[in-house]
Amino acid sequence: MLKGDERLDYLLAEEKRIIQSPSVFSFSLDAVLLAHFTYIPRKKGDIIDLCSGNGIIPLLLSKHTEVPITGVEIQPRLADMARRSVTYNHLADQITILEEDLRGITKILGKEKHQIVTCNPPYFNTPPSSKVNENEHYKIARHEVMCTLRDTIRVSAELLRQGGKASFVHRPDRLVEIIDLMREYRLEPKRVQFVHPRPDKDANMVLVEGMKDAKSGVRYLPPIFVHEQNGDYTPLLKEILYGKSK
Amino acid sequence: MLKGDERLDYLLAEEKRIIQSPSVFSFSLDAVLLAHFTYIPRKKGDIIDLCSGNGIIPLLLSKHTEVPITGVEIQPRLADMARRSVTYNHLADQITILEEDLRGITKILGKEKHQIVTCNPPYFNTPPSSKVNENEHYKIARHEVMCTLRDTIRVSAELLRQGGKASFVHRPDRLVEIIDLMREYRLEPKRVQFVHPRPDKDANMVLVEGMKDAKSGVRYLPPIFVHEQNGDYTPLLKEILYGKSK
Repeated sequence: MLKGDERLDYLLAEEKRIIQSPSVFSFSLDAVLLAHFTYIPRKKGDIIDLCSGNGIIPLLLSKHTEVPITGVEIQPRLADMARRSVTYNHLADQITILEEDLRGITKILGKEKHQIVTCNPPYFNTPPSSKVNENEHYKIARHEVMCTLRDTIRVSAELLRQGGKASFVHRPDRLVEIIDLMREYRLEPKRVQFVHPRPDKDANMVLVEGMKDAKSGVRYLPPIFVHEQNGDYTPLLKEILYGKSK
Repeated sequence: MLKGDERLDYLLAEEKRIIQSPSVFSFSLDAVLLAHFTYIPRKKGDIIDLCSGNGIIPLLLSKHTEVPITGVEIQPRLADMARRSVTYNHLADQITILEEDLRGITKILGKEKHQIVTCNPPYFNTPPSSKVNENEHYKIARHEVMCTLRDTIRVSAELLRQGGKASFVHRPDRLVEIIDLMREYRLEPKRVQFVHPRPDKDANMVLVEGMKDAKSGVRYLPPIFVHEQNGDYTPLLKEILYGKSK
């Protein structure tokens, strides 16, 4: 089932496994925290994960819900890995992976019909520096080559029905741009949570949730600290990564 | 020196005293945290504090700098109290209190000539509810009656020379509006810090610093927690309020 340099990594808290490979973009803490942050409907509605990569977010969310989850990934290699992870975890009835360009996905999945969208988009709006010898897989995952931040937010908003929610993870220095774009596409920001690598460090990640056609009024949640001062994971991070200790 | 219901309160960390009165707006933690947050030039430049109230920010900052500080306050009663506090603390050589409308202050103080502006503006853009029996002093201090958020940011930007800094404290739900307005008036946001009443509570205050004509790139600083879970002030707050323990 594994191809070439792929390996089967553990998702401990969810008791699942995921196919990864060093030659394509592996999932990161950012996706794990986005899965933790997003509102998850238990039995009704559906979830669409854009920029799904190797399917980390659908795999993580599937433990907590019965609703159908659709992952959208433009890179054939990553979409293929995601599909095989879905099969390995016996989740083919719940999770569908579409190898598609998100800019055309509304035509396929339908406009204003969906309840939840998640997206861990490429972070860098600058074209990759020619000095960086980055392979094509990494380039597409990290830079806005195939889709811009505007594309991801516009498409997220198009997919959602009134009251539906979209969650994004991004770099803090794009927060204001994200919120401005969300408002432009009728996604009212409702929750923002900053992630700091340690309690005494600047935030290096931000989680943002918007609701389609909602009233204005945003909460800035208690921050997440990833590590203690001594470098250990904080209790919250241990719970997110390894599950609740018994 | 005290008039009517006024009292002489302590500013412990700064070893100063301040005139307050229950019938006008007393200084709040917001102003204390803004004074802690703002960049303070030691010997060169100057500081202008808009919406200065009873002069709390000039009084707090004077301990840490030799530069001249100007407080601008539109309410005669508050400006008078501020002046008397300045005199009481023997700071008349350093601190000037102007009883002026900030919307006309650039003509008096000069355009693009100043290094630091601080402002703890009124928080509410809604007109005071007719149900709330608020006195005129509180109304002006809390509601955008005499100046809007746009006025304060525009005037702050006008006063600053290139590279000068303006700091604001406000409610988190106005953050995006603040940043959008700052950019409109060439004040590039550089530092943002959220204040949470406790580590597990949403932020209820945000501090924002912008630099005139600066490059973009904003830091989201480690958050400030006011109280521990048990209700005590955190060590940082104790230090800010009572001074460093020896």
